[in-house]
Amino acid sequence: MGSIVTENRKNLMLFSGRAYPELAKEIGEVLGVGVTPTTAYDFASGETFVRYKESVRGSDAFIVQSMTQPVNNWIMETLLMIDAAKRGSAKRITVVLPFYPYARQDKKHRGREPISARLIADLLKTAGANRILTVDLHTAQIQGFFDGPVDHLFAMDILADYVQANYGHRELTVVSPDSGRVRVGERWTDRLGGCPLAFIHKTRDPLKPNQVVANRVIGEVAGRTCILVDDMIDTAGTICKAADILFDNGAADVIVTTTHAVHSDPATERLKNSRISEVIVTNTLPLGPDKAFDKLTVLSIAPLLARAIREVFDDGSVTTLFGGLS
Amino acid sequence: MGSIVTENRKNLMLFSGRAYPELAKEIGEVLGVGVTPTTAYDFASGETFVRYKESVRGSDAFIVQSMTQPVNNWIMETLLMIDAAKRGSAKRITVVLPFYPYARQDKKHRGREPISARLIADLLKTAGANRILTVDLHTAQIQGFFDGPVDHLFAMDILADYVQANYGHRELTVVSPDSGRVRVGERWTDRLGGCPLAFIHKTRDPLKPNQVVANRVIGEVAGRTCILVDDMIDTAGTICKAADILFDNGAADVIVTTTHAVHSDPATERLKNSRISEVIVTNTLPLGPDKAFDKLTVLSIAPLLARAIREVFDDGSVTTLFGGLS
Amino acid sequence: MGSIVTENRKNLMLFSGRAYPELAKEIGEVLGVGVTPTTAYDFASGETFVRYKESVRGSDAFIVQSMTQPVNNWIMETLLMIDAAKRGSAKRITVVLPFYPYARQDKKHRGREPISARLIADLLKTAGANRILTVDLHTAQIQGFFDGPVDHLFAMDILADYVQANYGHRELTVVSPDSGRVRVGERWTDRLGGCPLAFIHKTRDPLKPNQVVANRVIGEVAGRTCILVDDMIDTAGTICKAADILFDNGAADVIVTTTHAVHSDPATERLKNSRISEVIVTNTLPLGPDKAFDKLTVLSIAPLLARAIREVFDDGSVTTLFGGLS
Amino acid sequence: MGSIVTENRKNLMLFSGRAYPELAKEIGEVLGVGVTPTTAYDFASGETFVRYKESVRGSDAFIVQSMTQPVNNWIMETLLMIDAAKRGSAKRITVVLPFYPYARQDKKHRGREPISARLIADLLKTAGANRILTVDLHTAQIQGFFDGPVDHLFAMDILADYVQANYGHRELTVVSPDSGRVRVGERWTDRLGGCPLAFIHKTRDPLKPNQVVANRVIGEVAGRTCILVDDMIDTAGTICKAADILFDNGAADVIVTTTHAVHSDPATERLKNSRISEVIVTNTLPLGPDKAFDKLTVLSIAPLLARAIREVFDDGSVTTLFGGLS
Amino acid sequence: MGSIVTENRKNLMLFSGRAYPELAKEIGEVLGVGVTPTTAYDFASGETFVRYKESVRGSDAFIVQSMTQPVNNWIMETLLMIDAAKRGSAKRITVVLPFYPYARQDKKHRGREPISARLIADLLKTAGANRILTVDLHTAQIQGFFDGPVDHLFAMDILADYVQANYGHRELTVVSPDSGRVRVGERWTDRLGGCPLAFIHKTRDPLKPNQVVANRVIGEVAGRTCILVDDMIDTAGTICKAADILFDNGAADVIVTTTHAVHSDPATERLKNSRISEVIVTNTLPLGPDKAFDKLTVLSIAPLLARAIREVFDDGSVTTLFGGLS
Amino acid sequence: MGSIVTENRKNLMLFSGRAYPELAKEIGEVLGVGVTPTTAYDFASGETFVRYKESVRGSDAFIVQSMTQPVNNWIMETLLMIDAAKRGSAKRITVVLPFYPYARQDKKHRGREPISARLIADLLKTAGANRILTVDLHTAQIQGFFDGPVDHLFAMDILADYVQANYGHRELTVVSPDSGRVRVGERWTDRLGGCPLAFIHKTRDPLKPNQVVANRVIGEVAGRTCILVDDMIDTAGTICKAADILFDNGAADVIVTTTHAVHSDPATERLKNSRISEVIVTNTLPLGPDKAFDKLTVLSIAPLLARAIREVFDDGSVTTLFGGLS
Repeated sequence: MGSIVTENRKNLMLFSGRAYPELAKEIGEVLGVGVTPTTAYDFASGETFVRYKESVRGSDAFIVQSMTQPVNNWIMETLLMIDAAKRGSAKRITVVLPFYPYARQDKKHRGREPISARLIADLLKTAGANRILTVDLHTAQIQGFFDGPVDHLFAMDILADYVQANYGHRELTVVSPDSGRVRVGERWTDRLGGCPLAFIHKTRDPLKPNQVVANRVIGEVAGRTCILVDDMIDTAGTICKAADILFDNGAADVIVTTTHAVHSDPATERLKNSRISEVIVTNTLPLGPDKAFDKLTVLSIAPLLARAIREVFDDGSVTTLFGGLS
Repeated sequence: MGSIVTENRKNLMLFSGRAYPELAKEIGEVLGVGVTPTTAYDFASGETFVRYKESVRGSDAFIVQSMTQPVNNWIMETLLMIDAAKRGSAKRITVVLPFYPYARQDKKHRGREPISARLIADLLKTAGANRILTVDLHTAQIQGFFDGPVDHLFAMDILADYVQANYGHRELTVVSPDSGRVRVGERWTDRLGGCPLAFIHKTRDPLKPNQVVANRVIGEVAGRTCILVDDMIDTAGTICKAADILFDNGAADVIVTTTHAVHSDPATERLKNSRISEVIVTNTLPLGPDKAFDKLTVLSIAPLLARAIREVFDDGSVTTLFGGLS
Repeated sequence: MGSIVTENRKNLMLFSGRAYPELAKEIGEVLGVGVTPTTAYDFASGETFVRYKESVRGSDAFIVQSMTQPVNNWIMETLLMIDAAKRGSAKRITVVLPFYPYARQDKKHRGREPISARLIADLLKTAGANRILTVDLHTAQIQGFFDGPVDHLFAMDILADYVQANYGHRELTVVSPDSGRVRVGERWTDRLGGCPLAFIHKTRDPLKPNQVVANRVIGEVAGRTCILVDDMIDTAGTICKAADILFDNGAADVIVTTTHAVHSDPATERLKNSRISEVIVTNTLPLGPDKAFDKLTVLSIAPLLARAIREVFDDGSVTTLFGGLS
Repeated sequence: MGSIVTENRKNLMLFSGRAYPELAKEIGEVLGVGVTPTTAYDFASGETFVRYKESVRGSDAFIVQSMTQPVNNWIMETLLMIDAAKRGSAKRITVVLPFYPYARQDKKHRGREPISARLIADLLKTAGANRILTVDLHTAQIQGFFDGPVDHLFAMDILADYVQANYGHRELTVVSPDSGRVRVGERWTDRLGGCPLAFIHKTRDPLKPNQVVANRVIGEVAGRTCILVDDMIDTAGTICKAADILFDNGAADVIVTTTHAVHSDPATERLKNSRISEVIVTNTLPLGPDKAFDKLTVLSIAPLLARAIREVFDDGSVTTLFGGLS
Repeated sequence: MGSIVTENRKNLMLFSGRAYPELAKEIGEVLGVGVTPTTAYDFASGETFVRYKESVRGSDAFIVQSMTQPVNNWIMETLLMIDAAKRGSAKRITVVLPFYPYARQDKKHRGREPISARLIADLLKTAGANRILTVDLHTAQIQGFFDGPVDHLFAMDILADYVQANYGHRELTVVSPDSGRVRVGERWTDRLGGCPLAFIHKTRDPLKPNQVVANRVIGEVAGRTCILVDDMIDTAGTICKAADILFDNGAADVIVTTTHAVHSDPATERLKNSRISEVIVTNTLPLGPDKAFDKLTVLSIAPLLARAIREVFDDGSVTTLFGGLS
Repeated sequence: MGSIVTENRKNLMLFSGRAYPELAKEIGEVLGVGVTPTTAYDFASGETFVRYKESVRGSDAFIVQSMTQPVNNWIMETLLMIDAAKRGSAKRITVVLPFYPYARQDKKHRGREPISARLIADLLKTAGANRILTVDLHTAQIQGFFDGPVDHLFAMDILADYVQANYGHRELTVVSPDSGRVRVGERWTDRLGGCPLAFIHKTRDPLKPNQVVANRVIGEVAGRTCILVDDMIDTAGTICKAADILFDNGAADVIVTTTHAVHSDPATERLKNSRISEVIVTNTLPLGPDKAFDKLTVLSIAPLLARAIREVFDDGSVTTLFGGLS
């Protein structure tokens, strides 16, 4: 009568915030697991309430939230969901963030600013998150902001396969819209078989900071189909201006591809009215009907996330499948 | 040439979030100190940016934020402001929350819920807050949620002085709108010289949880002026129903007094249309023109907050002034 | 020869402090598991020594301690037991506190006091506790003092079933002995089928703090059997004075029911000599022969604790069974 | 109107637990500072209450507690005092422990034991202590248990000056009562001008652990005055047996000297009835009238503690004065 | 006799590790403060010992260490120095790292790698560092790895002033040696008045990872003086190959400028033998006589560090002076 | 479709640092498990890189490192290996340190020193270590420096069996080379059947600290075979001097036995040239061919470590096997 011994089983449970439930549902369908029913609403006062309708004790919990608008609201909801899972005795909590919020505030650009991306990592940890699973971080260093394992997935294979299939026969040049992300463009050139690389050089007057006085294309674009690549499109100002400059420099065609379609106003209007032929994105963030337009192609990220979740749950070692999953 | 020795001075700096800058300004005027100029805005994507326009190095920083709608937004802004102050080398950071957010979710009412009020305390700590200064917590136990000093101020003196001056000559009964806050009412009866106390007893069918089947007044209200007291008014449903029951039980008049005028929709409409004679509140939360109505009286909390901030800065010992400040 | 893979089993081990070993033994009998033999004694110097006589490696450890007199001693013993389990490589440590100590010091009543109930939670965490399992917290907010899961059980069903069976046929009024716990009384009225509710209104002279100048019964008690409910009885001063006031106001009979029978001196004497007919308690705390008297009825809390422990071990989802277990 | 700038002053406040208020008072008299008035008592239930009667905001707080019987009680009181000081906004909290409790449980002697001395350090830290000031730790490694500065004072100078003055003219041998503390004895021989050193070698039967089968004196003691030195005397069993063995081996006289006079029962009886000529101790722990006997000499530790407190407050650099204060 | 009140002064103390004492000495000379005498040596076993020869109580400590070879040794020495300062009661500890070690391992390049730069930040924090002061981080995101203030200085002004003075009259092109640091080059073009920008595009065979198959210059370099800019030069392989490619593409001249001259073998040999005209560096790392060569120009970083230290000590607000100091 | 439930298995993985891979390999052979292939090297700059070649997700990881010269290098490598395992999602990380580094700096010997052994424990914890497994700590209190389970193994059985077998027939005296480790010698006398015990008494001039003015043997050594026991031999100065003194006092023979053969220069030379007959050590540290000499006997510690690792993995309870494993 010394002790009670039983088998130790583990069970995967999938949870979804309210930001983009369709994505979690799609992930669940790939996994063959339902999204756990959850009560979540905002009180008239603006405070958020969440409660899981089923026991989460001992579970290996995956909480999926797409950090779309209003992002501060979904961050708080996510923190509350983590807290509820922790206090409800979930065994391990992985936060699945297809798009990591505040990723652009990853350093102090000037004094007396927050490092918001680090703060987000700390808030998740404080609430009780044990792990993070995310896609195409704005800078990979954000992995190091979280004190625990981060599985960092890449969408390039999904996007590049599509580009290769649809534009592989043309004379391509990969273009980075600014000097800070030329390295990403370089990876694309390798993936697309060694095509040329270009970027837009912006010059600023040191006496008028933050004011661009000239944009020059560095690299070979005349007569070529330019693949403008970036990790995210927000208001589409930079990307549309880049496309204009490319056309001004003789580009034959401009295709845009990005992982995270933030598409804040007036992105949709700008892209629709631009001379860009096609905008290829994934659904790490929801794109409602009001954000649809003819030239927009949306590829699903759900299969990639589902496979990663399954591997995490199974302690699998298929790093190679994900191009970067540790 | 061993070391450089200088005098160690301390300087009080006052910061304001965007939720209710008028209150911080009013506090600053009482203190004789300006609110430090700060850049704060939301990007189109919904992410918030903050930056202090002056150095905060070595300062004793007081960050004031009124947790009004949209509350999740202001929570995130506050966390970012704390982070910026911490990374900008402020010496000590006190968060001034006239109204503590998520105070009602101070326990798990049922299983698998978060304890949001504790989470808020932990988030503030993680971001870098050293102290909290707040007014009339929904439950005083929330003090214990924060791992550090909490100065807990009471607005009762401000409100009760007004009630005494305007209604002290009448036959008063203090009424608690529900069974959970009778203790607060009891304190009011002492403050008002020992008048009677009553409350509304709600009965529920155990088989239909959360559904009130009857409301009974326990205590003496017929022919009397009832002072309905609560710490906050949210949608005003409870308080207006309580007023109706009091009138149904023969109350001569009903006055409502509360510290925190959350006044979510349809509070203003309900209060305006009720038989309540006067609604007396403080400005811990902003009440815009759309929330004004004839019967509403707003008393300022700024002098109380200003005195508390000054005492904290001066390491003062005037506990008695604040009725509870440690 | 890459790695050794084996099945991962889990085993429940039950430990008992010296405060009330009979309760742990009773829990173990319900569970079908023995209490792990443990060496524990105080040195002549007053320091406490503990050592487990069997290996605790990898176990799911439940450490039961009833926080009776001398409570500071048992707190230290519990902390030492947790430390020994942690350093002995127990996998998970749940502290079972049928009565949470220092629960009444859950806030700063005045300045410069500790928040002892939070301190207790932090000490348990620091020593190595992962979870807490407890019964009828003085205020439910104490759940939020612990940074981890708290399973909060309620004894009301046990007590109310007994009251219903023995007094259900009478005209009952539930009475709260003071204004701070009327909400608990309200829950009892629902449980007992909607009977009336009353409480004792204490008035204090603002110039003489902490001195009650009058006690009034608010609610209907004349000619009725009053069920005085409270979470704990300490010296029984409040409860006996309340009973007297009820009789003075015409009560036909007074029954007292409480979860935690602290029964410090002179509680036994007072209760025995009072006009109270029956005192119904549970055994969350030991009641030795010197604390027995004719009118005392003790109901066992062990079956409830045993079921909760088993559910925690099994990652069960029988929240409903426990009326509140998450 | 940017900020309020004032001079930053610091003030030393002295607090005393209830274990041995006379020592704190004596320290205060040396320092020229009063002990801050404090309310402290135990409720009938055994729970302890503390409250400072004066504001502690911004103070450099020194909390003195002598860890005598009932030690667990005083530990809890100390933790509550620290918590109250922290929540009352003391700027820095130094715990002054003339005798560090649980110092002998500084490692796991066997498996499944706590490391109680480390636990104590962690509890102090958790409650809010920033620094520890203590005297003659049982093992100096305990300094490393605390995550922060520890000022470790030595009483040897006080004791050795007395021994030198009273016995310096005799033929002395310093004797360690067991093999574990010979190093301490060696330091004494240097301090006393190079006299001989001896110790008691205990042999144990490996088959009967913890049972000493023989005691042998290793070193030269015949015809000499033996100075038996130890850091503490608890029940005096070891020390009295050591004295007997020394006399059996021809010692002319035996003097005992120790810093910490725990003197648990039956220490006083044993020492009084022994052939030891004089027992020289300090007052790190209280020795009430019932523990007095003719041969006992008590030297005050208060001047040493007062000087150390003053240096800590002043950021002084008089390490040399204290023989070890960093 | 309530408390002792004194003025609170602060004193700056400067400490130096053994890696590059000349730099700390130079900083001290600018500041007008001596480096605190410190004992530091390695035992024969390889373990390091440090001890400060003067009291550090209450000081504002600045510990300077240049993370040169053998870097792991100097990291451990720095951690030991921080621990000694913490345990010696320094009030605040700022670690001055002219070159942040392990900065290149700032993310998991592939699975199952450490994020060493974050680990370094955590080790510094654990040892007791409150702040970091550093120059030209490899990626600015490393600021976010440390949980506290990081003052991040830039050497560009020092280097660019020299380039402007010596080469400003020529036709310049700023060149980034790889795609990952084009943004740094862009900043230089603004600083040098809007000159052209170029970079080396490396292509890799996706089937043979990490193997560069071609290097192309993107941008205008023929006939121009190329300023090759990078944050650090390690073995100089990349930079020398880049120079060769530039000359192959018609560059008139190649100048190299970098902040951190790691100059591991065979950097000196390579640079000396290259066609590069001048190599302009700072002394964030020591460059012994064996690393000197004719074309090498070393500019001192000490004045910048000294000014930053003084500002940190004084809580100054001269952000503008340092181009980025918060 | 609620959740995916699978069996929870656990797998033991063994990792080795570069300090002494032969030992890990030997441990693996006893366990029947291979050492996981790992990439580890130092860059030219001195920074260390590590990467596991196989997935470590969910593993029970044991990282073996022998803390030999250059010890700071191996400490950093170990921290990097722990970080990589943590970020690679290992489930539990046990660091196997046959020789705990910096164990001699386990307290502040004088002011303003670090407590390096505690720092090491904290660094391991910060990097992500959950447990430590080590052999013959210099002082057992170091167990308490780590906030988690420490399994402390003893090599005495291995060494004593050898001594008994080879010298058991002689007249033995166990000798401690200094006053600080006589307790260890006492344990050996019990293990060897109750033979005599002696030690070397060093006297110092109080005016010339750290300078030994005389060495005296306390105890019976003339004509006997002396077994000089110590936990480690570093430069062998102390041990060789002790041997000389023993011979000077008439010892017939001197045998040295120790667990940790640090054998820093000039230990090998000294021991070889001494009159010591045999030096018996274990291989907790590597002893290359340059450190070999005729009189040296090396006993393997691998079987002991392998059994301990297996027990830890299996949650075994064979404390007795290891003489101290908890």
